Amino acid sequence: MKQQNKLKILNDPIYGFISIPNDAIFELIEHPYFQRLRRITQMGLSYLVYPGAHHTRFHHAIGCLHLMQRAVQVLRSKGIVIDDVEEDALYKAILLHDLGHGPFSHALENLIIQGISHEEISLLFMQDLNAQFNGSLTLAIKIFQGKYHRPFMLDLISSQLDMDRLDYLKRDSFYTGVAEGNINSQRLISMLNVVDDRLVVEEKALYSVENFLSGRRLMYWQVYLHKTGIGAEHLLQSVVQRVHELLDNGVTVDIPTTLQFFLSNKTIDRSQLLERFAAIDDTDIFTLLKSNQSHSDLVLRELCQMILNRQLLRIKFSNTPVPQKKLDKKIEKLKKSYKLNDKEASYFIFHGEISNSAYAKAKPILILNKKNKVVELTDAAKEPSFKALAKVVTKYYYCYPKIQD
Amino acid sequence: MKQQNKLKILNDPIYGFISIPNDAIFELIEHPYFQRLRRITQMGLSYLVYPGAHHTRFHHAIGCLHLMQRAVQVLRSKGIVIDDVEEDALYKAILLHDLGHGPFSHALENLIIQGISHEEISLLFMQDLNAQFNGSLTLAIKIFQGKYHRPFMLDLISSQLDMDRLDYLKRDSFYTGVAEGNINSQRLISMLNVVDDRLVVEEKALYSVENFLSGRRLMYWQVYLHKTGIGAEHLLQSVVQRVHELLDNGVTVDIPTTLQFFLSNKTIDRSQLLERFAAIDDTDIFTLLKSNQSHSDLVLRELCQMILNRQLLRIKFSNTPVPQKKLDKKIEKLKKSYKLNDKEASYFIFHGEISNSAYAKAKPILILNKKNKVVELTDAAKEPSFKALAKVVTKYYYCYPKIQD
Amino acid sequence: MKQQNKLKILNDPIYGFISIPNDAIFELIEHPYFQRLRRITQMGLSYLVYPGAHHTRFHHAIGCLHLMQRAVQVLRSKGIVIDDVEEDALYKAILLHDLGHGPFSHALENLIIQGISHEEISLLFMQDLNAQFNGSLTLAIKIFQGKYHRPFMLDLISSQLDMDRLDYLKRDSFYTGVAEGNINSQRLISMLNVVDDRLVVEEKALYSVENFLSGRRLMYWQVYLHKTGIGAEHLLQSVVQRVHELLDNGVTVDIPTTLQFFLSNKTIDRSQLLERFAAIDDTDIFTLLKSNQSHSDLVLRELCQMILNRQLLRIKFSNTPVPQKKLDKKIEKLKKSYKLNDKEASYFIFHGEISNSAYAKAKPILILNKKNKVVELTDAAKEPSFKALAKVVTKYYYCYPKIQD
Amino acid sequence: MKQQNKLKILNDPIYGFISIPNDAIFELIEHPYFQRLRRITQMGLSYLVYPGAHHTRFHHAIGCLHLMQRAVQVLRSKGIVIDDVEEDALYKAILLHDLGHGPFSHALENLIIQGISHEEISLLFMQDLNAQFNGSLTLAIKIFQGKYHRPFMLDLISSQLDMDRLDYLKRDSFYTGVAEGNINSQRLISMLNVVDDRLVVEEKALYSVENFLSGRRLMYWQVYLHKTGIGAEHLLQSVVQRVHELLDNGVTVDIPTTLQFFLSNKTIDRSQLLERFAAIDDTDIFTLLKSNQSHSDLVLRELCQMILNRQLLRIKFSNTPVPQKKLDKKIEKLKKSYKLNDKEASYFIFHGEISNSAYAKAKPILILNKKNKVVELTDAAKEPSFKALAKVVTKYYYCYPKIQD
Repeated sequence: MKQQNKLKILNDPIYGFISIPNDAIFELIEHPYFQRLRRITQMGLSYLVYPGAHHTRFHHAIGCLHLMQRAVQVLRSKGIVIDDVEEDALYKAILLHDLGHGPFSHALENLIIQGISHEEISLLFMQDLNAQFNGSLTLAIKIFQGKYHRPFMLDLISSQLDMDRLDYLKRDSFYTGVAEGNINSQRLISMLNVVDDRLVVEEKALYSVENFLSGRRLMYWQVYLHKTGIGAEHLLQSVVQRVHELLDNGVTVDIPTTLQFFLSNKTIDRSQLLERFAAIDDTDIFTLLKSNQSHSDLVLRELCQMILNRQLLRIKFSNTPVPQKKLDKKIEKLKKSYKLNDKEASYFIFHGEISNSAYAKAKPILILNKKNKVVELTDAAKEPSFKALAKVVTKYYYCYPKIQD
Repeated sequence: MKQQNKLKILNDPIYGFISIPNDAIFELIEHPYFQRLRRITQMGLSYLVYPGAHHTRFHHAIGCLHLMQRAVQVLRSKGIVIDDVEEDALYKAILLHDLGHGPFSHALENLIIQGISHEEISLLFMQDLNAQFNGSLTLAIKIFQGKYHRPFMLDLISSQLDMDRLDYLKRDSFYTGVAEGNINSQRLISMLNVVDDRLVVEEKALYSVENFLSGRRLMYWQVYLHKTGIGAEHLLQSVVQRVHELLDNGVTVDIPTTLQFFLSNKTIDRSQLLERFAAIDDTDIFTLLKSNQSHSDLVLRELCQMILNRQLLRIKFSNTPVPQKKLDKKIEKLKKSYKLNDKEASYFIFHGEISNSAYAKAKPILILNKKNKVVELTDAAKEPSFKALAKVVTKYYYCYPKIQD
Repeated sequence: MKQQNKLKILNDPIYGFISIPNDAIFELIEHPYFQRLRRITQMGLSYLVYPGAHHTRFHHAIGCLHLMQRAVQVLRSKGIVIDDVEEDALYKAILLHDLGHGPFSHALENLIIQGISHEEISLLFMQDLNAQFNGSLTLAIKIFQGKYHRPFMLDLISSQLDMDRLDYLKRDSFYTGVAEGNINSQRLISMLNVVDDRLVVEEKALYSVENFLSGRRLMYWQVYLHKTGIGAEHLLQSVVQRVHELLDNGVTVDIPTTLQFFLSNKTIDRSQLLERFAAIDDTDIFTLLKSNQSHSDLVLRELCQMILNRQLLRIKFSNTPVPQKKLDKKIEKLKKSYKLNDKEASYFIFHGEISNSAYAKAKPILILNKKNKVVELTDAAKEPSFKALAKVVTKYYYCYPKIQD
Repeated sequence: MKQQNKLKILNDPIYGFISIPNDAIFELIEHPYFQRLRRITQMGLSYLVYPGAHHTRFHHAIGCLHLMQRAVQVLRSKGIVIDDVEEDALYKAILLHDLGHGPFSHALENLIIQGISHEEISLLFMQDLNAQFNGSLTLAIKIFQGKYHRPFMLDLISSQLDMDRLDYLKRDSFYTGVAEGNINSQRLISMLNVVDDRLVVEEKALYSVENFLSGRRLMYWQVYLHKTGIGAEHLLQSVVQRVHELLDNGVTVDIPTTLQFFLSNKTIDRSQLLERFAAIDDTDIFTLLKSNQSHSDLVLRELCQMILNRQLLRIKFSNTPVPQKKLDKKIEKLKKSYKLNDKEASYFIFHGEISNSAYAKAKPILILNKKNKVVELTDAAKEPSFKALAKVVTKYYYCYPKIQD
């Protein structure tokens, strides 16, 4: 009895309107695998810091599709041949590139399923869809895997200037209200070109590239690596870890049916993985938190409440590693106040480090200079600001609960 | 162990920054009652039509608080006396005015709890908080109930030009990308005044008022009463009704613990109402849908799948009531194709009407004209466009599944 | 020695980037006739009310070119055949449609050259360019004159939904900061279609059309017919009239060489018209004002100073004609205070009426309804707000200087 | 007969509405000295590159006034005492800080009047206004001159984070459409503070400061130092130089009366300077260009035409000085083609260098760190990107006409 509501144009506050290029792509969007992305938030728990950040992987994927249409148009107008089959494959590959994200996107990656990245699951989904849609995704998969003989197509999907980044930076900036990340995607795309089947940017776009990288850098430190957000993600990860531990010790935990496959089993049955994974999204994690906020285990109960009611840990950043002494003092105080053992205390006090560089030379951005030569970005731009963007910056942090004396 | 993270400034993509005026208000925001609004979407199922519409009641309430701060500032600059206690009460009243919203806001109102409006529940919440916070909400409640002797304060919270509407129209326009609703809240607020303790708008704002009402009209027909959205809401309401029916017939349904109080009980125990209501939000409804998408009952199963996978009903609008004959034909076909009885078929084929007028004279907008007299809007503005906005427009619709012959 | 700087992409704060479709069009833009539009402000003296309103006819014409490119793209995607020659002609016609505007656009139309509209002068310019460019504008001119057998092409250039209006409303709204006129050009264009060679809008765009008309209405009353702006334009017109009068009476006036052809001659020599007209722009009028702000004639001197220093007349609006008595009283007072005769006083006290309807049925907007029939707008939309937009609204005003008693 | 139209609120597309704080400031705005800024474009000839860049010094000064009101509000809310007299002086000082700009702002500075900067002329204007307004600008002038005992007040008017920069970067970005300069003025102002009477920024604003400096850097290279713009400014300067030369040689040049004082006199009569300077603006320069575009002198004629019709020189940028050989070759070719002598050729072929650093340590930005200590920016931020912003970048260029072989 289910209906297909053929809407061919989607409203987007960022790009205005997004058109769906053809029926086959429309059918992919209609597929439950893709509709599931409507229930997976793009930025995990960042909404606890930026209350507007509730946009989803669904919207991001549609946004990427839009930018890819622009990119194909621009490249063709410059004489780059992209035939209809390739065009269709590019759209499918970018549309589906994030299918493999699980609940809260990156926040729980590698915890719900260990040892499998979201890209690998995306691939599994694509292969499954390829079977369902009679092999019509074969080229898209080839490009996605980097096995197609024209590497610029992969560059458009996965590189330092791919449609993925051009959409998510702009989108995350828009929904959080952090203007610093409002990059000029349209301008960057209009400056793309292809030389020897590699994606390049024309030299006149140098300042736009700098602005893009610099915007990305600022989004990392202000938003993606925001200290409150990092603290909240740690709490969420702690919940999953504590659940495992309690189950190992034979303690009953109220786990939604959909999550039992992932949380209750020691080893994951690969043959069921995709079906089970397709059934979970953010709501299952929320249900887990809500069901256990009165659990008899103090640790689990507190962790759940802290996330739900936004009563988060304190977090301190520094430019040097956190002295073990400082941590030990905090731990001792916590153990004494709440009568916790070492293991239990470790859920509330922890430290770590985060590193980021705005530009990674290893996977270079290529510039087409005015003499029609292709050079690496920091070779093309001699200014100190470009060099600075390539440097790795590392920060250290530790989290702890405030305890009244 | 829970912490209060005293953030005093919130990022908002619409207003830039929103400051929290004082500690008492900050504590209200930190309260779990208020944090729960982070899990209640402002626009119900509208995200199925406008993929950006995932913003929450939390963000809206904070936005209202911001506009109220502007309004107090403007009115004071015009010599209207608002003392510090009144100011604080205005902030608290507008901040909490939507606390009583349940899962998916209006979509399920009157279905989860029958016979109690969200405003009544908001009041219950406020009274409970008043007890928790030592009577510090007494004046806010008085204003909210319309019992304070300066009625303009209620006008700021609930009228045709209240801060509620000034925020939600702008916010909903922003997140959906429907530019037509992008009203000029700032300009309207700057033109507010108070005469004889009633809220008025200065005459020079007439065109801004027209634009506001006209924007509201367009948002109603394009967004709030969008046909796909209406169809989806009907499906959601049908789920709740079908669950009730199945339970009445002794059929087991997988219901999240949090919802059992509301769905399994014939009569609601008033003494537990608030505590139970505070425990539910959108995620519980999603869990209900997800848990029953393979239910043995065809009707429940189909309804759940249709919403989750966005396989919605067809819907037709017309300016005249839908002929019964047309409906009967659709019903017969459906019953035959799927072997359904009348009751079962009624979940998939139904009709209704919706009415809207952009301006309701009954609760007039008052204009302060250039001769310093207060007149009702359509008396102040003789142009035909104002009269037109006061007219009621009614449309009729029916929903049905497409069935291949 | 002059160079052509082939910039093929122009920055536009509204549309982002505007590309110039081909070399021939680029050459038209480079022509001094078109570059002159850089010195003709789009909104006359409106900058005295809205300080941001300094954008030019040049920018507007380029904006129209951009929208026409979108329109051609949309129509072709719907199967409307527009061949390459027609496409090129559409771009040229819209680009050049405003070439005939003189200094301060509408403010001085019919005063500098009497009896010739700006459209007629545009045509003269196009014909001259056609001769210079070897007949390559022949089809553009045919379309512009309404002589081409596919009338929808003229509709795109001159109708109630033409690219001209879609650009200027949005652009004027942007630069003035009057949000009410921020229409959704992109959405409207995406809903255009062609039936029987007439331009139509698809029914689903009804609310967008309403919003466009309503935005236009509000821009008229708030911006184009703003009382201060109207008063300022009257002063500017008075300057030209006073100059004529003084010259008639043999009084010397300092007139820039470029304007002498228009102001000093009783009859215009048609053979020189175009060359002379091409030589004047806003700066000549400013020079006229600046050169005569110390003129011995009180009237001329005052008028020039009033505009330059923004010391404008008072203006009152009403819904009924201004009683002669009221005017007479003002005139008497002015004559007495400044020792003026009737003629002289008439430059400072005057009255008039302005009428506007947002939608003129005479040149209808055509709607393609869901049954694929073409109907006139107010037949397609039965709602009262559409009817209201078609009504003519008239207002009366009078201007006068404030005189201290 | 001139009227004062007391508008107390101005529309601004950037900040929404700008209110004029008091009558005295309103009167300054009404003064012809200030109204003259309506005829001085903020960005000189940049409109030849960015067609939207026609905004004026008037609008910028009003924008600065708005930001200063925000800053005073923010600082007071943090407990910094600014009394009413100081507040008023801050508004007047920032409002009038650019009064001394002449035609086309920086483009002709030091050419129309040699040896006097626009700041010095601003001061002369302020002193004159102070006399006209009975000494009510005394404190404003004291602050502007850096003679007031609270230096943070000068910091607000003239420093690396002053209201001037916060407005012009944002405004220029808005009107050009170059998104890279869209800095977050509101956020930066909200992070300002005062320690020991010096202006400081709170440490949490570090990334906002980086974004501001980086935006400024990008605006310099993309907009202010845009090669086409630089070439155009050179042409304009050449016009003035050529006029001087021709006059020296006894050749008649058509010079507007207003400019004769500056162009025809060898030495400037200081006693008349202010009155004469107040009489000139952009329109006089345009008149100069228009009047001489058919001059018998090839050089003057060509220069005037090139600017008016946008037929500009070629310009090449490089990271190393331009080899004299290259220039000599171009000069020889030009001299031969057009039969020019060395002097004449020098107007069309020239070279130069431009340097810029986004952050000048000499006039440091001070950061208030979390330990409540004031440190210089690059000491507070250890990241390489900050260091990079402090480096001076120099580029070399040369301009020449393209000559067909």
